Amino acid sequence: MSENEVTQKALRAQEAAVKLATIGAAKKNEALFRMADALNQNEATILEANREDLEHGRQTGLAESLLDRLLLNKQRIAALVQGCRQVASLVDPIGEVTKGWVMPNGLRISQRRVPLGVVGMIYEARPNVTVDAASLCLKAGNAVILRGGKEAIQSNIVLGKIISDAATSVGFPAGTIQVVAGTDRNSVQQLMTANGLIDVLIPRGGAGLIQAVLEQATVPVIETGIGNCHLFIDATGDAEMAVAIALNAKTQRPGVCNAIETLLVHRGHVDRLLPRLLGKLADAGVEIRGCPEACRAFPRAIPALEADWETEFLAMILAVRVVESLEKAIVHIRRYSSRHTEAIVTNDLQNATRFVDEIDASTIVVNASTRFTDGEQFGFGAEVGISTQKLHARGPMGLEALTSTKYIVEGTGQIRP
Amino acid sequence: MSENEVTQKALRAQEAAVKLATIGAAKKNEALFRMADALNQNEATILEANREDLEHGRQTGLAESLLDRLLLNKQRIAALVQGCRQVASLVDPIGEVTKGWVMPNGLRISQRRVPLGVVGMIYEARPNVTVDAASLCLKAGNAVILRGGKEAIQSNIVLGKIISDAATSVGFPAGTIQVVAGTDRNSVQQLMTANGLIDVLIPRGGAGLIQAVLEQATVPVIETGIGNCHLFIDATGDAEMAVAIALNAKTQRPGVCNAIETLLVHRGHVDRLLPRLLGKLADAGVEIRGCPEACRAFPRAIPALEADWETEFLAMILAVRVVESLEKAIVHIRRYSSRHTEAIVTNDLQNATRFVDEIDASTIVVNASTRFTDGEQFGFGAEVGISTQKLHARGPMGLEALTSTKYIVEGTGQIRP
Repeated sequence: MSENEVTQKALRAQEAAVKLATIGAAKKNEALFRMADALNQNEATILEANREDLEHGRQTGLAESLLDRLLLNKQRIAALVQGCRQVASLVDPIGEVTKGWVMPNGLRISQRRVPLGVVGMIYEARPNVTVDAASLCLKAGNAVILRGGKEAIQSNIVLGKIISDAATSVGFPAGTIQVVAGTDRNSVQQLMTANGLIDVLIPRGGAGLIQAVLEQATVPVIETGIGNCHLFIDATGDAEMAVAIALNAKTQRPGVCNAIETLLVHRGHVDRLLPRLLGKLADAGVEIRGCPEACRAFPRAIPALEADWETEFLAMILAVRVVESLEKAIVHIRRYSSRHTEAIVTNDLQNATRFVDEIDASTIVVNASTRFTDGEQFGFGAEVGISTQKLHARGPMGLEALTSTKYIVEGTGQIRP
Repeated sequence: MSENEVTQKALRAQEAAVKLATIGAAKKNEALFRMADALNQNEATILEANREDLEHGRQTGLAESLLDRLLLNKQRIAALVQGCRQVASLVDPIGEVTKGWVMPNGLRISQRRVPLGVVGMIYEARPNVTVDAASLCLKAGNAVILRGGKEAIQSNIVLGKIISDAATSVGFPAGTIQVVAGTDRNSVQQLMTANGLIDVLIPRGGAGLIQAVLEQATVPVIETGIGNCHLFIDATGDAEMAVAIALNAKTQRPGVCNAIETLLVHRGHVDRLLPRLLGKLADAGVEIRGCPEACRAFPRAIPALEADWETEFLAMILAVRVVESLEKAIVHIRRYSSRHTEAIVTNDLQNATRFVDEIDASTIVVNASTRFTDGEQFGFGAEVGISTQKLHARGPMGLEALTSTKYIVEGTGQIRP
């Protein structure tokens, strides 16, 4: 049954995508506002479905952190409603002429932004992804197939039905927004190999999920989210700024990809700034795993192992290493970085320039927190994920990352000599 | 041995890529001019190696068309030399600030163009790809690993050594340009699964090669080249223009991806234009495979089978179908198109607009030959292939398609509230 489900939904999505490509912004915004209203009106139904998921989760022994991700309450539903309206307020990227020129033979060539077509989202326990991804895909003219984790299946089915019905009620094709009901591994497998039906897969979740999709998918994938992020405090880095940024980057929300996992500190700070900074972090509840020099400067630290430099803790743990120079910091980052976000605190212009030029990552931050690598913080209004790959889109992905382009060549009978 | 070869070369390429990312345009152009001079000076050595490949090819019974692709002569070597100089004359895309803005909190965000890193080229018998791809990759700051077909191995090794030596002689790292010497399947397999070492694979060649790479690669791939292209002659299409474009699109070079494979003709042309046009095509040596109505209008046609609408002939064969309307033409194209290039000859503005809006392909052509879908014809100076996928790059790929971007966030101590 689930085998047919994915293929059938993909075929319907493809049919929908043809129509979606020519629907204008006014109509798309109408659908988004309708979706927002419908979510609002059906709050009780959503909460009821979510309670089922939560109960089932408790019975099967889901961890508290997972249960929290799974949870929908009035406030979170209001955020989903607000999200749909926010996406409606964004400029429609479709139809933008991104380039245009005339060749010597008179051919007029232009490049125009078009939808990707059919987007497949594979995600885990957070039901809000269902609405966030669907609203962004719809605004960018794409059909979307949503395959969330089995933990959230009741919530996802209800959310999917509410927003899909809202979209079809204003004339959108039935295949615009579809939630995969099958929660077995088969349905993921079929999504990953639906070549010719699905244009791109976006996995969102933990490293295991993303790795599995990268390895097994034959459909093009946008890799998202693994963040082994570093903050380097250079010799000239302002001490107060360094403390504020390190605390924010580590503790403001430790479970996310743009939090820092390793702090690199220039040797010049070992006597004064380092003990004070690590003290503040430890007082905030951060476990410090230090190199020998860091442990000497801050005896509450425990010794770091090689694995600590490689690990995305996603927790209140921080690896700390003292380095003798910018070069050594760059070498460390090049070796261990997942190329998500890398930051420096410095007042040395040459060092800032070198750090920006020589580090390869989706986002390089100078004198600010790594937590800003985020679609909303970048002003994109919303995001569908953070790409850590180099093709297509890199960094926070807003509406534009959900589009492709096509070339239009207009002539007056030109042939090739 | 070959197992170690690919991994070793990929590691060396990755090391080179770090340095290449910070080399300026002047230095890169110096290398390109040196490469051009070296190819010029070593013409005799290149011809000698190529003779070996040709002899081996004749002994193993390669088809004439393959031997022709394999052939290098003075003229073709001169074209390679010219190609390197041409790439030197192109604007360096690296470092371009593609976007930039300031957030309300004072963060300055910019997006900067950077190299992809390490590019893997997998191609077939044409040794010119070795030089063309290497020069474009170098200009875009990428290291390249070149794995051509075994038929051209002697030519590729010699060409690779000449241009690699030229680049290193002006200070480029040894891993900048590398040819894989192993010609067994293993070396392709290793390239396709070198995740973390190779940033993108670009297969160039026949449908079989591209399909195999798409299915088996875990490294990101840019899909190139399959072209089941259509030309639709609308009711208002100018007859002379239609004849000239159809002849050019089918016969000027029938073996390439942007030649047409199917001609769709509006019913209004059945009595006059269609017989004349098909007569001219048949006189030029094109085999016409027609729908029943086309066969009635042009008795020299043979009946088309379903498979003919699906086939990229790459030969002097043309499938011809009479359609009653623009809608029917669009339906046919949507069903059979490989989304490479689709063309219309029309004088009806509404129909031109509908065709452009409703057809999904890398390139839509109005009143010109499909043969213009090409990097040089687009003014890109050179091309690394024609992408038929929707992610990253779509259509002819010049230097820009060989780049990625990174975001730079510059602050004054901002933290996330």
